Amino acid sequence: MSAPDSPISEHTIRRRVFFYECDGAGIVHFSNYFRYMEEAEHGLWRATGLSIARKDLGVGFPRVAASFEYHRPLRFEDEVDITVRIVSISTRSMKYTCALTMDGAAIATGSATIVCVAQQPDRSMKAVPIPPEIATRFAVAADTNS
Amino acid sequence: MSAPDSPISEHTIRRRVFFYECDGAGIVHFSNYFRYMEEAEHGLWRATGLSIARKDLGVGFPRVAASFEYHRPLRFEDEVDITVRIVSISTRSMKYTCALTMDGAAIATGSATIVCVAQQPDRSMKAVPIPPEIATRFAVAADTNS
Amino acid sequence: MSAPDSPISEHTIRRRVFFYECDGAGIVHFSNYFRYMEEAEHGLWRATGLSIARKDLGVGFPRVAASFEYHRPLRFEDEVDITVRIVSISTRSMKYTCALTMDGAAIATGSATIVCVAQQPDRSMKAVPIPPEIATRFAVAADTNS
Amino acid sequence: MSAPDSPISEHTIRRRVFFYECDGAGIVHFSNYFRYMEEAEHGLWRATGLSIARKDLGVGFPRVAASFEYHRPLRFEDEVDITVRIVSISTRSMKYTCALTMDGAAIATGSATIVCVAQQPDRSMKAVPIPPEIATRFAVAADTNS
Repeated sequence: MSAPDSPISEHTIRRRVFFYECDGAGIVHFSNYFRYMEEAEHGLWRATGLSIARKDLGVGFPRVAASFEYHRPLRFEDEVDITVRIVSISTRSMKYTCALTMDGAAIATGSATIVCVAQQPDRSMKAVPIPPEIATRFAVAADTNS
Repeated sequence: MSAPDSPISEHTIRRRVFFYECDGAGIVHFSNYFRYMEEAEHGLWRATGLSIARKDLGVGFPRVAASFEYHRPLRFEDEVDITVRIVSISTRSMKYTCALTMDGAAIATGSATIVCVAQQPDRSMKAVPIPPEIATRFAVAADTNS
Repeated sequence: MSAPDSPISEHTIRRRVFFYECDGAGIVHFSNYFRYMEEAEHGLWRATGLSIARKDLGVGFPRVAASFEYHRPLRFEDEVDITVRIVSISTRSMKYTCALTMDGAAIATGSATIVCVAQQPDRSMKAVPIPPEIATRFAVAADTNS
Repeated sequence: MSAPDSPISEHTIRRRVFFYECDGAGIVHFSNYFRYMEEAEHGLWRATGLSIARKDLGVGFPRVAASFEYHRPLRFEDEVDITVRIVSISTRSMKYTCALTMDGAAIATGSATIVCVAQQPDRSMKAVPIPPEIATRFAVAADTNS
């Protein structure tokens, strides 16, 4: 993957609901929205020319917060659009929001904050600055006011 | 299951981390915390003598909001305590918080809001009052100030 | 979805590995291959102009057997091709095989047998003949010799 | 964990079905039976005084084959007994069977073959002999005739 000319702040994927993602109530289990959000986020990383799991940089990006508000249920074979948008970047972390829509209708809105960490010899994690070769590829979305 | 003498406001389960719940980074995937929270919540319902999935009452309890903040990672075979506590009850909804701890250390804190709904003939969902035979079995936890 | 001109016997999807599908060993958890197989199978149904979950036909298609042999591991962001091929059709059941390949290399081979059932009033399931409007849309793959 | 006096060949766990394990048909998704089997297998390892994920031994135990036959569906809050039994042990691999029962009724029967591997510098895996400190803790179940 090669880097694009300018930093990336937003990414959308379209995703069909799989059968095993629906629960006993016949709708997508609420925990799976967090997985959809992560799929779109990893697409955002690939759009910058990176993989979030590059081993050679020696850092990882665990979540320190994640949330969703649910507006309408999703069912088997629904096709949903999932958009992540970066709303803030600091030295050690990034926050993005996530909107799920279907045919223009709001399905759910979420957010997540990821922190750049280095794994310590004792397997604990320590927050460290985002390496420049990563940080320069991302930008806060233009009309962000949160 | 028989009903206890007094309403229930809190419930704790102990849970060992399964191998398939860990992700490529070797720690429990953040989406699974929401599943752990739900397991404890369903235990809370059983402690009241109910199942959240009783078909005969004609209502369901989807989530309208869910969140987690992550403090420390969990790994394979860790044993974690998961406590849910009801912090508010209204006519149509309940909100609870969730604390994950291990050997007394804080692992994560979360919350969820569930709404009582009846399924409409067109398969949409409509918020309805929580039936009295359910509502009377739950109470807000004593020292709640949120 | 409209029906194609001739019965369908084979279907392939391409699928990128999601982060949460990898386990603590850094490879796709073996249980997820069964989900990949199902995704390709549901694509096969859609290719015939049907959904496996059509409520109006009053039947369902649970699995009575499923298996996989694993040749090579899959990792995060790998892109895998998943092909399902129908190898036998009887009055009440269908059997298909599944091949996972990546860049032509064999990753895994599986199989599943699904049975047409009607749900009984007591919630038990009873095998019934596959309705003609479904059965006529599928065919055994041409060079099948198993 | 300390080692027991004699090798272990069988282990049973009791497990309540979680809500999110049920699919859009209201029954446990067939892929989850493989996760249940693994949970019982890891319990078997712990019963020998080991963890299957001990890093210090430098070997791992991926599956090379796994299968299930499904007899009856499982639903939310069902309590199921899961028994794994070792049916063969060779220099580099072990095979076990798995029986799921509920109130004595057969729910499903499965099997899995795991192989002892060492990870190569190029991240490929190579089958190696099971280390003696592991192999001596397991035994083929007494009345095995397969």
